[in-house]
Amino acid sequence: MSAIQKNLVEKNEEYASKFTKGHLALPPAKAYLVLTCMDARIDPAAAFGIDLGDAHVIRNAGASAKDAQRSIIISEQLLGTKEILLVKHTGCDMLTFSNEDAHGLVKKNLGASAAAEIGTLNFLPFSDLEQAVRDDVEFIKKTETIPKDVTVSGWVYEVETGKVKQIV
Amino acid sequence: MSAIQKNLVEKNEEYASKFTKGHLALPPAKAYLVLTCMDARIDPAAAFGIDLGDAHVIRNAGASAKDAQRSIIISEQLLGTKEILLVKHTGCDMLTFSNEDAHGLVKKNLGASAAAEIGTLNFLPFSDLEQAVRDDVEFIKKTETIPKDVTVSGWVYEVETGKVKQIV
Repeated sequence: MSAIQKNLVEKNEEYASKFTKGHLALPPAKAYLVLTCMDARIDPAAAFGIDLGDAHVIRNAGASAKDAQRSIIISEQLLGTKEILLVKHTGCDMLTFSNEDAHGLVKKNLGASAAAEIGTLNFLPFSDLEQAVRDDVEFIKKTETIPKDVTVSGWVYEVETGKVKQIV
Repeated sequence: MSAIQKNLVEKNEEYASKFTKGHLALPPAKAYLVLTCMDARIDPAAAFGIDLGDAHVIRNAGASAKDAQRSIIISEQLLGTKEILLVKHTGCDMLTFSNEDAHGLVKKNLGASAAAEIGTLNFLPFSDLEQAVRDDVEFIKKTETIPKDVTVSGWVYEVETGKVKQIV
């Protein structure tokens, strides 16, 4: 067992020994979902005030709405969420590379057949943080797979200060 | 501002007022990533013992490895992670419906043009939890876009007890 697996087992034993939330229902109690980045410096429950059982939390590279579409549809159509908070963040890795860079790295590090495997995959990088928040909120509002009565807002989280600010 | 947005702002003010981690680096300090479900009953930082800054956390409906491929490649090729913990969970919504059910709901609730918009989207449901963990670990190990020296393990988290157990 690796050190990282050992850490999971040991910390989880501690968590489970004090666990009292085994009765929570499957649908999020507050019927909302948070879409944010996979970045290691974000703890959504603590930073965004999400109590256990209250909200779906979707995380991917860059908090991309396009990449989250399958999960968002399931959250709304099957589990009844009615509001989306989209939170991107300062210092995001998605601001630092282009699609060409990423495809170049895959080819160089993993070889031509790995590059062929992903084809023209869009890594969804962006160059302007606040504009990317606006674009993704727009994308969510425009897609027909998300009902018009879903409330959508867009935010930036500052990894330097721990603060959120609303963009849209 | 909605009640859910107010909750974010108020709880975040509290969080930011005690925030001391503004110095953390972009790459995860412990060079690993956790892939788990968006389910509201999972708090990965607390339940899996992830300290702020240590690991990427990817979350989507069902902890699907296929759906996370773009994020995993970015995590490994651009930010140097070397280990993956895949954690699915008991009581997952993905065990309760079929692709046909989900497409039927979209068509019924959102109309024919929404159904056309998603085409043949695979919602990636599964019918056997532990088998789904094994299948996704296998998928990660087989794909050429993930280097062979990345350690991959598969786990189930019990939402009833707060406990994890290793599957593979």
